[in-house]
Amino acid sequence: MAAAGAIRLIGLDPGLRATGWGVIVAHGSGLAHIANGVVRTDPEACVAKRLVQIASGLEDVIDRFSPDEAAVEETFVNHNAVSTLKLGQARGVVLMVAARAGLPVREYLPNLVKKAVVGAGHAGKAQVQAMVAALLPGLGVIAADAADALAVAICHAHLRDAHARLLAAGR
Amino acid sequence: MAAAGAIRLIGLDPGLRATGWGVIVAHGSGLAHIANGVVRTDPEACVAKRLVQIASGLEDVIDRFSPDEAAVEETFVNHNAVSTLKLGQARGVVLMVAARAGLPVREYLPNLVKKAVVGAGHAGKAQVQAMVAALLPGLGVIAADAADALAVAICHAHLRDAHARLLAAGR
Repeated sequence: MAAAGAIRLIGLDPGLRATGWGVIVAHGSGLAHIANGVVRTDPEACVAKRLVQIASGLEDVIDRFSPDEAAVEETFVNHNAVSTLKLGQARGVVLMVAARAGLPVREYLPNLVKKAVVGAGHAGKAQVQAMVAALLPGLGVIAADAADALAVAICHAHLRDAHARLLAAGR
Repeated sequence: MAAAGAIRLIGLDPGLRATGWGVIVAHGSGLAHIANGVVRTDPEACVAKRLVQIASGLEDVIDRFSPDEAAVEETFVNHNAVSTLKLGQARGVVLMVAARAGLPVREYLPNLVKKAVVGAGHAGKAQVQAMVAALLPGLGVIAADAADALAVAICHAHLRDAHARLLAAGR
């Protein structure tokens, strides 16, 4: 059970091969790490079955850690249409599962995530991971995909109040 | 209940705005139309909620018409990464829902669908729709998205035996 005023946030970093997730608690300006991990899919299976593995894995995580809200990084792969489509397929399942579980889902552009976590929109991957570890004491060594997911959760923790104020002020 | 040797196929044409579907029965070289329609999403809703609408609508269709196998067109949007990602998100949910319902899911490239239905890989949309109507007597006037979905189902009806033979012959 979360303390009064505390809110549980899940950050998600979708991918067909590996979908990172990270759950934190935000209370005022304080943050605490709850859990993180990666849902991996069987590379031998067909795409449709791998998408079922992502859905089931994520449903299980949401069930276990009961987050109140979800945040997803709005990544674009510009290399080619095939990889963008693949990423889109994994993302679609992740967004759908989170929304179906009743979580408000917010998307953040990568530069905004970096800015919210490190303070600079063009920070490198290593900088982001170091800041995630600094902001969530006791985190230990974690998978890169899970660190990215925690970064989105932290970004959401910092920006959700600002969003709420904007909405209250009348869009 | 399908007749002995008959198989029910659902064709799917995914899209965030509208996902076409069409169910046919194939028995030997004969085809019959069962039902078709379009799952439309609320353009005012956020993407995550629209993806839930696609999932729920499609689950309902699969529940009502109990197809044995699913076929999806492997469309690529090359215009820009944003529209490819959007299409990918809808596609991911469609593939996942079909696979989770226990249906084998096969994907076909657009040119193969046209070739299987019209006989020419570069047939126009109107030609495909006219052939779909000719192959499924009594179809009447239907939505373009549903006609595309029926075309994929017809393509699968024509090619599934060939696939099965190939699989049996090798590997």
